Amino acid sequence: MGRSSAIAPEACNCNPPDTGNMETLHTFATLEQKERWLDPLLDGEIRSCFAMTEPAVASSDANNIQTSITRDGGDYVINGRKWWITGALNPQAEIFIVMGKTDPSAARHRQQSMILVPRDTPGVSIIRGMHILGYDDHEHGGHAEILFSDVRVPAANLIAGEGDGFAIAQARLGPGRIHHCMRLIGGAERALELMCRRVASRTAFGAPLAEQSVIQGWIAESRVRIESARLLVLKTAWLMDTVGNKGAHTEIQAIKIAVPRMTEWVIDKAIQVHGGGGISQEFPLAASWAAARSLRFADGPDEVHKRSMAHRELRKYRG
Amino acid sequence: MGRSSAIAPEACNCNPPDTGNMETLHTFATLEQKERWLDPLLDGEIRSCFAMTEPAVASSDANNIQTSITRDGGDYVINGRKWWITGALNPQAEIFIVMGKTDPSAARHRQQSMILVPRDTPGVSIIRGMHILGYDDHEHGGHAEILFSDVRVPAANLIAGEGDGFAIAQARLGPGRIHHCMRLIGGAERALELMCRRVASRTAFGAPLAEQSVIQGWIAESRVRIESARLLVLKTAWLMDTVGNKGAHTEIQAIKIAVPRMTEWVIDKAIQVHGGGGISQEFPLAASWAAARSLRFADGPDEVHKRSMAHRELRKYRG
Amino acid sequence: MGRSSAIAPEACNCNPPDTGNMETLHTFATLEQKERWLDPLLDGEIRSCFAMTEPAVASSDANNIQTSITRDGGDYVINGRKWWITGALNPQAEIFIVMGKTDPSAARHRQQSMILVPRDTPGVSIIRGMHILGYDDHEHGGHAEILFSDVRVPAANLIAGEGDGFAIAQARLGPGRIHHCMRLIGGAERALELMCRRVASRTAFGAPLAEQSVIQGWIAESRVRIESARLLVLKTAWLMDTVGNKGAHTEIQAIKIAVPRMTEWVIDKAIQVHGGGGISQEFPLAASWAAARSLRFADGPDEVHKRSMAHRELRKYRG
Amino acid sequence: MGRSSAIAPEACNCNPPDTGNMETLHTFATLEQKERWLDPLLDGEIRSCFAMTEPAVASSDANNIQTSITRDGGDYVINGRKWWITGALNPQAEIFIVMGKTDPSAARHRQQSMILVPRDTPGVSIIRGMHILGYDDHEHGGHAEILFSDVRVPAANLIAGEGDGFAIAQARLGPGRIHHCMRLIGGAERALELMCRRVASRTAFGAPLAEQSVIQGWIAESRVRIESARLLVLKTAWLMDTVGNKGAHTEIQAIKIAVPRMTEWVIDKAIQVHGGGGISQEFPLAASWAAARSLRFADGPDEVHKRSMAHRELRKYRG
Repeated sequence: MGRSSAIAPEACNCNPPDTGNMETLHTFATLEQKERWLDPLLDGEIRSCFAMTEPAVASSDANNIQTSITRDGGDYVINGRKWWITGALNPQAEIFIVMGKTDPSAARHRQQSMILVPRDTPGVSIIRGMHILGYDDHEHGGHAEILFSDVRVPAANLIAGEGDGFAIAQARLGPGRIHHCMRLIGGAERALELMCRRVASRTAFGAPLAEQSVIQGWIAESRVRIESARLLVLKTAWLMDTVGNKGAHTEIQAIKIAVPRMTEWVIDKAIQVHGGGGISQEFPLAASWAAARSLRFADGPDEVHKRSMAHRELRKYRG
Repeated sequence: MGRSSAIAPEACNCNPPDTGNMETLHTFATLEQKERWLDPLLDGEIRSCFAMTEPAVASSDANNIQTSITRDGGDYVINGRKWWITGALNPQAEIFIVMGKTDPSAARHRQQSMILVPRDTPGVSIIRGMHILGYDDHEHGGHAEILFSDVRVPAANLIAGEGDGFAIAQARLGPGRIHHCMRLIGGAERALELMCRRVASRTAFGAPLAEQSVIQGWIAESRVRIESARLLVLKTAWLMDTVGNKGAHTEIQAIKIAVPRMTEWVIDKAIQVHGGGGISQEFPLAASWAAARSLRFADGPDEVHKRSMAHRELRKYRG
Repeated sequence: MGRSSAIAPEACNCNPPDTGNMETLHTFATLEQKERWLDPLLDGEIRSCFAMTEPAVASSDANNIQTSITRDGGDYVINGRKWWITGALNPQAEIFIVMGKTDPSAARHRQQSMILVPRDTPGVSIIRGMHILGYDDHEHGGHAEILFSDVRVPAANLIAGEGDGFAIAQARLGPGRIHHCMRLIGGAERALELMCRRVASRTAFGAPLAEQSVIQGWIAESRVRIESARLLVLKTAWLMDTVGNKGAHTEIQAIKIAVPRMTEWVIDKAIQVHGGGGISQEFPLAASWAAARSLRFADGPDEVHKRSMAHRELRKYRG
Repeated sequence: MGRSSAIAPEACNCNPPDTGNMETLHTFATLEQKERWLDPLLDGEIRSCFAMTEPAVASSDANNIQTSITRDGGDYVINGRKWWITGALNPQAEIFIVMGKTDPSAARHRQQSMILVPRDTPGVSIIRGMHILGYDDHEHGGHAEILFSDVRVPAANLIAGEGDGFAIAQARLGPGRIHHCMRLIGGAERALELMCRRVASRTAFGAPLAEQSVIQGWIAESRVRIESARLLVLKTAWLMDTVGNKGAHTEIQAIKIAVPRMTEWVIDKAIQVHGGGGISQEFPLAASWAAARSLRFADGPDEVHKRSMAHRELRKYRG
């Protein structure tokens, strides 16, 4: 259809969720699992999906997950409904990593497991593609709702052990979040450039828009905000490189809060100076904005990150 | 395709731009023009479009309009490019009211005229439909870009006289703006209801979302903001009824600034408590948000209204 | 000392807390109490204080109050520490209405009582005057911290009955809050006028400040916000007149949230265009701002009002 | 009087304006000037003042300065009115550096000069101390308004040459601004610590304030904002060390915009959780807030810095 998309077209063979899936398989999969799925993924022969979020519950609390992964002889049987499975409308996406509960009675963070489910397993039904503010992102495989109904796979498809699901998810979310933030900063920079070019060339009420102090304020403000966010991301990357994802925990949460909303703000102003063009397919701004907005809750809403950051900050002052 | 849309589905035979066009024809058209176009419009036999905004210039300054309406014998010849012509993709939209310049050398607000252009006139080319974020609103006739290339219509198609275009535009924009604001308040109320229903039923980290003070704050804040905006709209409506559109000028600008952003804010919070569902076609929130966002520049960007309001406020304190 | 003050100088014989105290005595006091204290108060012969807030606890939760009012024969004995007792540094303030607990084991809202304590009762020690952002408001009697140490008054000094304290407080807070909001709107209007006069007369970088779009935005925005707040206050006053304080409960909370922050915003911008003058004693802006800021927690912080408003809003959607 | 002050008490012998004056004298003064004034300043024997801001004009535009410095034989004669001369109420402040115009007809940035005026020179009248909100900062020498009326000093008191005033001012403002920002970040950190300690110990409605998500949000948000601001200041300092004040021009403006408002925001939230205590002399928060607020216009209002930043940003996309 040639419609623009909330996923940047240039993000092609280094896309989420493939990058995250590769990392997960590289770190946690068995040799057999790697040969079967990681190698063709790295070779670009297949694509992959990651199925965690569920429509019926607040998935930001991993404890809420309802999909069951039940041992039955040499198999696991999976039942549940997932949505926002990015890329799943693309038939090339041959393998799904699915999060579910193997033991709902275990300790809070030991109930979940991850398992490999090939696309063509009986019982996997793709229900529909979800939209992000009108964008269906179909050219990138969309964001599917999928029903898993008595889906049976060999027990060897489990990634790591039973109860490791939460830990695997944590391990992939850190890098995933900084990747998102780096892409967003690029989007904000592009928006600022478009804003500057536009106001330098448009005239209203007898003067270029660039001479209006309210627009000068937006430009300066954008530079201040982008720069602050960039430095926070750089510090986080440096921490991840030097003290690891755990050591960078607070900073990863900080950028996840700070960067999407900064990007939203900058793009909103760029849209405003573009008028109707800005909100349309004429410029990349609107699709970019949709991506930034969705990241205020995707991979955990701001409020959950703030809760966790506050706990850490308060801990300094307690007995 | 069954996709949701940034125009509310219930807004059917009382839609912009038909309502505004009917008002314009009722007030300014000749008897012949009324019989030919207003009657079938009122009878719901045809639909109509309003073509003012241009892609190449800042249309919020009417002086910038580049489309020409040139007298040539008993005809007028129209040349120019317009976009955001709501409803034009619907073939039922048989008549376009087009704004252009009949005399670029006249006084600032006497250069523009409005003219009736039947859809099937040679030289009228529909280029494409514009999107609002990812919504193309095709089920409501979309928002078209249209090229007018040596389009020739009888001189009798001019609405009122040459140079009356700016005044006609002003006359229709006031009522149009309050209609927009009333629809937005409805959208905000719906979003608040959805937000309340959602947080009462969702649980995270051991408690209903409704018990989190940050979400209680959003709900209270939404009520405060909706109520303030509603009162401002009611006052404006009362002024329009009692002292007319001119007497309500400042208030019309005030609601045009205040209501879209209030609605944006409330819907944004409702989206946030709905997570992925909120941004998708699953709820009316995302499409409603898109409509609110576009009204921060449609019918004049906030910045132009603020400029004008400030001039009036400052006038009180000048010699 | 001739210093400016966070209480407006024009607010003289209709000041808080005298107005609220008069209302309280008028509604709840015995004939003897009225003759002794209300009459000279109405005649302007004496002034009065209201002692509720305590330094050691979050007083927004009336349950936290620690001051004890203990029956001992024909007397009550009061022990506790209060602060922010407005007007108490003025020796003319001859009578204090003190809130304390007569029965900490009673139901949540029946533990508190109010009692009349003459200034010169032994055991009443005025510790110091509290400042609001540097303002001591000494010309209006300041805001005292007072220690009540075995203060003994006749049992006849109790206002209404034991356990009525919470209800009496609620009855006076509604009117008190709308009075505050009306004063704040006046302060915001004055700030907007000062802002307009200033920017019309000051020049920077070759043009009057009034021609800068960023400042035009502040002026328009101020008008929009003042007008919205005024309408909300007017609606609240109308409800109080027609359905009473209880019927206006939600609206009283709404204005208590909306008006102080609106006033803060407008005055902040007025200060900004006045530069150093704005923050100083040269203009009434800084003192006005301090008053507005203190009303974001005085008589209950915004967060408590939001909590209560949200509960009411959510109730609509529950069983 | 023992009142608290908007200048932190610990900032004693490394205070503005002494630090800036030392830098100015070190860089631009003659040997004689240094011996007479810089040495005793460094030895802590005297204090000094910097007189640039004028009450009658927008001083952020150096072109507006009205104070005249007129050559008369071997002397210069100074006439003008200045205010916000920090420290001038302290009689130890024996020397004032005064900015004025030696040649109003010169090029825009060559009209101004700086000159040394000893405190006891005839014609120097200290009019009054200015307040910042209610703080008079008298224990740090206050902020004086001073009238210079036919004040005559030897020509040798001129710093550098005629017309060098603007360049000298620019040279001192960069370092002055980063010092301000570093102090503010300290103030924000202190406020966050106080906020955490407070909410961990206060209870309302049955739970510690620390468990309310709205307050957790403030704490997390404060950490995010402080951290972003700190990184921006660190980058600026690094640029000043490596490429000099000119190379760090954009960053110095960025921190001047970003840091005071960040600090305002954090302290505002800390005040809110402290209730009446927060706004009073009981905690350092209110005075700290006053200092942060005044830095949104002192040394140039945000709006002037944004204008300049936008010009630089736009320059990238022009011709």
